[in-house]
Amino acid sequence: MNRNFNEFNISILSDFYEYTMAQGYFNENMDDKITYFDVFYRNNPDNASYAIFSGLEHLTEILNSMKFNKEDIEYFKSLNTFDDKFLNFLENFKFECDIWSVPEGSVIFPNEPIMTVRGPAVQAQLIETIALLIINHESLIATKSSRIKRAAKGRAVMEFGARRAQGIDASVYGAKASYIAGIDGTSNVLTGKLFNIPVLGTMAHSWVQMFDTELDAFKAFAKSFPNNCVLLVDTYNTLQSGVPNAIKTFDEILKPMGIRPKGIRLDSGDLAYLSKQARKMLDDAGYEDAQIVVSNSLDEYTIRDLLHQGAQINSFGIGERLITSKTHPVFGGVYKLVAIEEDGKIIPKIKVSENVDKITTPGVKNLYRIYDRKQIKQKLI
Amino acid sequence: MNRNFNEFNISILSDFYEYTMAQGYFNENMDDKITYFDVFYRNNPDNASYAIFSGLEHLTEILNSMKFNKEDIEYFKSLNTFDDKFLNFLENFKFECDIWSVPEGSVIFPNEPIMTVRGPAVQAQLIETIALLIINHESLIATKSSRIKRAAKGRAVMEFGARRAQGIDASVYGAKASYIAGIDGTSNVLTGKLFNIPVLGTMAHSWVQMFDTELDAFKAFAKSFPNNCVLLVDTYNTLQSGVPNAIKTFDEILKPMGIRPKGIRLDSGDLAYLSKQARKMLDDAGYEDAQIVVSNSLDEYTIRDLLHQGAQINSFGIGERLITSKTHPVFGGVYKLVAIEEDGKIIPKIKVSENVDKITTPGVKNLYRIYDRKQIKQKLI
Repeated sequence: MNRNFNEFNISILSDFYEYTMAQGYFNENMDDKITYFDVFYRNNPDNASYAIFSGLEHLTEILNSMKFNKEDIEYFKSLNTFDDKFLNFLENFKFECDIWSVPEGSVIFPNEPIMTVRGPAVQAQLIETIALLIINHESLIATKSSRIKRAAKGRAVMEFGARRAQGIDASVYGAKASYIAGIDGTSNVLTGKLFNIPVLGTMAHSWVQMFDTELDAFKAFAKSFPNNCVLLVDTYNTLQSGVPNAIKTFDEILKPMGIRPKGIRLDSGDLAYLSKQARKMLDDAGYEDAQIVVSNSLDEYTIRDLLHQGAQINSFGIGERLITSKTHPVFGGVYKLVAIEEDGKIIPKIKVSENVDKITTPGVKNLYRIYDRKQIKQKLI
Repeated sequence: MNRNFNEFNISILSDFYEYTMAQGYFNENMDDKITYFDVFYRNNPDNASYAIFSGLEHLTEILNSMKFNKEDIEYFKSLNTFDDKFLNFLENFKFECDIWSVPEGSVIFPNEPIMTVRGPAVQAQLIETIALLIINHESLIATKSSRIKRAAKGRAVMEFGARRAQGIDASVYGAKASYIAGIDGTSNVLTGKLFNIPVLGTMAHSWVQMFDTELDAFKAFAKSFPNNCVLLVDTYNTLQSGVPNAIKTFDEILKPMGIRPKGIRLDSGDLAYLSKQARKMLDDAGYEDAQIVVSNSLDEYTIRDLLHQGAQINSFGIGERLITSKTHPVFGGVYKLVAIEEDGKIIPKIKVSENVDKITTPGVKNLYRIYDRKQIKQKLI
């Protein structure tokens, strides 16, 4: 399916109140008043010490092609809330704010402005929802991915989460954000094609079940893909059946072709124990170079545990816990008015709150990073 | 932005291994073998006693328009993994499996087949990723929404989560799933337009900050939207400033117009205490019919707590905790081969696992619901 051009217009993906406020600014002749909004967030996901910024490229693309078509205007008319002046503004909309932003993939910290939008009230307000949606989602997944990649201590990490992602964009742009943060590849073909990211994958349990025996299934796969032969060894019994059948397949199919096997994949059970046993069996059979790939609900915490237990793993396939940032599935970026211009002067604006951490830092800010030789420090001016 | 028709083709949103397996089935002349796959899940989110099924309509739409265009074929060619026979199959692809499914919005339980796909191995395998992605996401949000709506005990519940959703589809189809599960409306304009769902919303804190005083901001809003006047009262101080200014606005702007105010919204602080105080102040001023709307990181747990404390709330606006199902952000639906046909006979297939709960139930099943007068029971045959 491709989205219907007229109906699925991302330009109207916005909270309704952005439009009622915009109409209100017209009524008050404040639509052209120059405003400054900061995007920032208050706490790092997973109580970590940093986050990774992502979403700028995607957001820029959306804002640059923002427009409202006839169907959209008809829809707004049908809501009996907006006047002709406002509908006319939508019909001729062209996004004209200035945006300052930290670069895609930057390390970011709480309470610093990661993006500042300057422009007419009516425009700067209108993009709040989509700006937060894109930045919150992609920064969330980039941050989680960075944590997972670091936990793997140099081993390869693949993104395998499409089937558990929260919707189509979550899978496509989540996988993209994970790549920006250092993940090595994805199973998601659409992401691979759109962003030129390596795609990976071999077989599911259903492949093994389709044949009369596991050995038949392995041999058939090795014949079809001798150069990409990673065999999934846990459909029946990993150590009694899966690994021995994999070795037999390597011996009987690949060896005569003069091709080294890529390896095996474990997807269930005690991965530390099974990987150590499998490593020994592969080594004893002369396949020291065969890789052991593991999957099954992994994240930075389980990876750290596995490596601590001496698991023999070359590569991790990470699914739902990366693509949903399961332990912390929300990146709390906010979009707050920090100043307005009046007669050419910048007037700072503040929001006070009964929740102390919801109080904003008023004024237009510059962001400095001060580095020393040992660590990165941050300062906000 | 609208998605580029050629580039963003959802048909290739799939794990890469679905394609390698499909190519393998061609090589083994098994591509036409008739297979049965069950979709089921193992545990209810949030340790609840049920889940709500959603995603069928969306999935059907995607499968019915599934096709691979020239760009896609070129991309597959560039991967040096697929032969011409397979690429030709993709080029002429038409989805031809049979699907049995429980209806959209059904109550579902673990380990029963909620969907069964019957068709040629090469086709039934190819749709695994997208089928799970859509069903897992939309069932997750429908389930969470149903829990939240029940906790609100008949009060109105609005979906306000777009800015914290995990991507564009998460916001659009998440809001749709929440409506299917009983939520009353959404702030998401695109969802409202696409699926004819009521859209709601009034003002953000930035509206209040834009004016010299809170009272100016309220009066301006009341003049612009006298019939949809819900004032956000917590920008500075809810009880000292927000509620008194709201009442003054109702008195001075709406009363002379003969219009009753819709109400106020609280978005921070101790919502139980503030709502009780605000209720009293509104009642004393003669606005017993003014509604109190609350938002601020709510879910079924906090709603239950608030109502238990006697909070005076008419309507809940629910953001990130609904749209990401924050306490349980993954719906673990799986897609498993349960049988194949050979010479017209159905042969059951099983997957054994070192994780006992990953063992599948083989064979083709019918699903029965047995109701008695007091409760619903389930049975699987």
